[in-house]
Amino acid sequence: MRITPEILQQLQAIVGSSFVFTDIETRNQYGHDETEDYVFPPHVVVKPENSLEISEILKVANTYKIPVVPIGARTGLSGGALSVQGGIGLSMERLNRILHIDEQNLQVTVEPAVITQVLREAVAEKELFYPVDPSSMGSCWIGGNVAENSGGARAVKYGVTKDYVLNLEVVLPTGEIIWTGANTLKNSTGYNLTQLMVGSEGTLGVITKIVLKLIPKNRHNVLMLVPFYNANQACEAVSAIFRAGIVPSALEFMERDALDWTLKFVDNLSVSVKDGIEAHLLIEVDGNYPDILMIEAEKILSVVEAFEIDEVLFADTEDQKNALWKMRRSVGEAVKSNSVYKEEDTVVPRYELPKLLKGVKDIGKKYGFESVCYGHAGDGNLHVNIVKGTMTDENWKSEVPKGIRELFELTVALKGTLSGEHGIGYVQREYMDIAFSKVQLELMERIKFVFDPNGILNPGKIFPQ
Amino acid sequence: MRITPEILQQLQAIVGSSFVFTDIETRNQYGHDETEDYVFPPHVVVKPENSLEISEILKVANTYKIPVVPIGARTGLSGGALSVQGGIGLSMERLNRILHIDEQNLQVTVEPAVITQVLREAVAEKELFYPVDPSSMGSCWIGGNVAENSGGARAVKYGVTKDYVLNLEVVLPTGEIIWTGANTLKNSTGYNLTQLMVGSEGTLGVITKIVLKLIPKNRHNVLMLVPFYNANQACEAVSAIFRAGIVPSALEFMERDALDWTLKFVDNLSVSVKDGIEAHLLIEVDGNYPDILMIEAEKILSVVEAFEIDEVLFADTEDQKNALWKMRRSVGEAVKSNSVYKEEDTVVPRYELPKLLKGVKDIGKKYGFESVCYGHAGDGNLHVNIVKGTMTDENWKSEVPKGIRELFELTVALKGTLSGEHGIGYVQREYMDIAFSKVQLELMERIKFVFDPNGILNPGKIFPQ
Repeated sequence: MRITPEILQQLQAIVGSSFVFTDIETRNQYGHDETEDYVFPPHVVVKPENSLEISEILKVANTYKIPVVPIGARTGLSGGALSVQGGIGLSMERLNRILHIDEQNLQVTVEPAVITQVLREAVAEKELFYPVDPSSMGSCWIGGNVAENSGGARAVKYGVTKDYVLNLEVVLPTGEIIWTGANTLKNSTGYNLTQLMVGSEGTLGVITKIVLKLIPKNRHNVLMLVPFYNANQACEAVSAIFRAGIVPSALEFMERDALDWTLKFVDNLSVSVKDGIEAHLLIEVDGNYPDILMIEAEKILSVVEAFEIDEVLFADTEDQKNALWKMRRSVGEAVKSNSVYKEEDTVVPRYELPKLLKGVKDIGKKYGFESVCYGHAGDGNLHVNIVKGTMTDENWKSEVPKGIRELFELTVALKGTLSGEHGIGYVQREYMDIAFSKVQLELMERIKFVFDPNGILNPGKIFPQ
Repeated sequence: MRITPEILQQLQAIVGSSFVFTDIETRNQYGHDETEDYVFPPHVVVKPENSLEISEILKVANTYKIPVVPIGARTGLSGGALSVQGGIGLSMERLNRILHIDEQNLQVTVEPAVITQVLREAVAEKELFYPVDPSSMGSCWIGGNVAENSGGARAVKYGVTKDYVLNLEVVLPTGEIIWTGANTLKNSTGYNLTQLMVGSEGTLGVITKIVLKLIPKNRHNVLMLVPFYNANQACEAVSAIFRAGIVPSALEFMERDALDWTLKFVDNLSVSVKDGIEAHLLIEVDGNYPDILMIEAEKILSVVEAFEIDEVLFADTEDQKNALWKMRRSVGEAVKSNSVYKEEDTVVPRYELPKLLKGVKDIGKKYGFESVCYGHAGDGNLHVNIVKGTMTDENWKSEVPKGIRELFELTVALKGTLSGEHGIGYVQREYMDIAFSKVQLELMERIKFVFDPNGILNPGKIFPQ
């Protein structure tokens, strides 16, 4: 496949020549995301304005069988937006409007390139709440959230992106523009194309409009940081909290190293960690009635006090809360700034978390790598950062993939799977055989073929080679 | 297609001859559900014990291209379980065990033929809550709920069946047995086969095991019945309650006629309806703190008092609550006992409810039919019962379908769709072109083909002829 001058001309005719880029700087810029240090530049970057232009672009691509990769904010952690087979990098950046905040129906219609936090703040002004808050919400886009079925800290109470998507406008790889469903809370009308599109990582269609459910905003919250002398006990405390009848609005786990590195990485965090502390839980409850939240916080306190913990820090002010959340949200970046790394987005039923954590460490010992773990413990979603540290390049290349394979074998044995919220994308696809049989993978591949008979849309993703 | 003695022998060899039925009584019994007065008997009724037997049955059916219809409790309202092309009626009744209530992970694994209410009560004994409560929950089965993506009164706060299904064991029409996902709250690993299966009405696979998410049980609730002098105002009050920041755990609408007929139909309901009352809202809030519920109930009161209402009835005792719920749950049956009828399961964004209700009445006038409306107003899900009453048979056959077509055109124009929770099944399929373009329907048909290349599973459903 080659982008001929003729094809280039056709693309320019569709979007205007000022929105077609073939220079190497632009191509490289659009050829990487936040996944390790990969760079896979597209042959050409195209910046359409709307779904009609995207339809025309896809018709051209489908005619000439050119790969097309929808590109969002490039904050992804599984390489979903990388142009691994070159072709057209379809930047969604100009589809960046909040089209309609429907205060009557508690819904919002939005284009894909709206920053998730911008969306959250816009609806919050109307006393509405879009709860999904990936750690990268200050820079990621809602379109990418839908494509990867992103989660975040509040998923434990409020669910993930898929739980808020009511309807999608999608451009199919063959150029047709469809809506996947209806703008209703209930829908039993034909197959659920909406949920098939959510989490399909840009392989089935290009998402151009998104209708999301909103809920009334909760006015108050209580945030506490609980230091545990034993990391496995921290994991055990997680399901004990739920069994006590509490559904926290966030329940985050951070290993000691994660916190230490973050405190070095981020200035002005007034948190100190005592010797011997192995892990922290950051726990939030929210609601409309402060008195009730204090009751729930006390219940949580009585649960965690059954374990070996140090003094619990309650965030008294908004500033303190923001500092604790900034700390939590910076962990990923802090860990990554420290060493070459690979991040695995493991997920298991939450009670299996202690087994998973122990397994991670045992597997690390076997294959000679260190790991730093943190994540959304309430969902059983543990981000395992395998750090290269002083490992030789040879061992990094030969041993780590074996260790990752064993790690995923463990998550699947614990009735979990490969990815909780990052997607499979480019980097996890070689492990798909662990989670799925040949029959299951073939079903998925044949669904892909239904939408994309020429395989032009985001090729080289999800499916093992 | 004919069930030859040879095929019959093969079926008997799989399940044992005492679980294969060809007598007309059994065939007729399994040939109807709660949809109008349709009877479409299968040629043979087979009652397998487990997924392995189902796999063998489907292999036989696939070889000889015999239709197979999975049959649940036959409480469906769209004819999904009717053997419209004969063939094998696959009764799921022997797969009726609750396999594992996982109190650690707040999950339950269950076979399809467990009565929804039995499931709810079994988990409630462990202080856990499965919130989905179709009106037929005393007789419907969880497998049918998954197949139709059933809703119910509590969906407004807690969501519908799809929001609780984590993972499914499914026998494909070709005989392979797969799990669709993982037992995790978060999952971004390949296409969402779980959600594709939910609501697919037995056309993509036979569901044999279901893993459901559970939540901690709420201990208290407040229930009130609000009589409105104007039915449209009752509809308007619905979204006003949400805009006041309240998420009720139920918000049900009943037209005057619905209530009158129900009071005649059900004994011992101590509810009386004043002259001039056009509609009622049944409103419930739930939670763990009675004081808070009283605050929320007062907020709701202040919202509804802005409309023309009569005295609000608060249910003070469990008996009163049960009586009010019994009344609401009996409306469907009461209306149906009164006349030949057709029930449409319309759904729109909730603020559009007054327009929908007005449209229903206008369309009725135009085509000469009466209707009784009730349903889950909080979800914008209005059950429209078109009653034959004194209409001539000729008009019933010629005019009503035109009226229904116009009704669905209205719901779609209001950004709603054909079915909120009953499914399309047999009776609504001729209206699918209103909700979906040719491109959308073709996508769905090709997905069907991916799972079921010979089209043996529940043929004649969902798709227009």
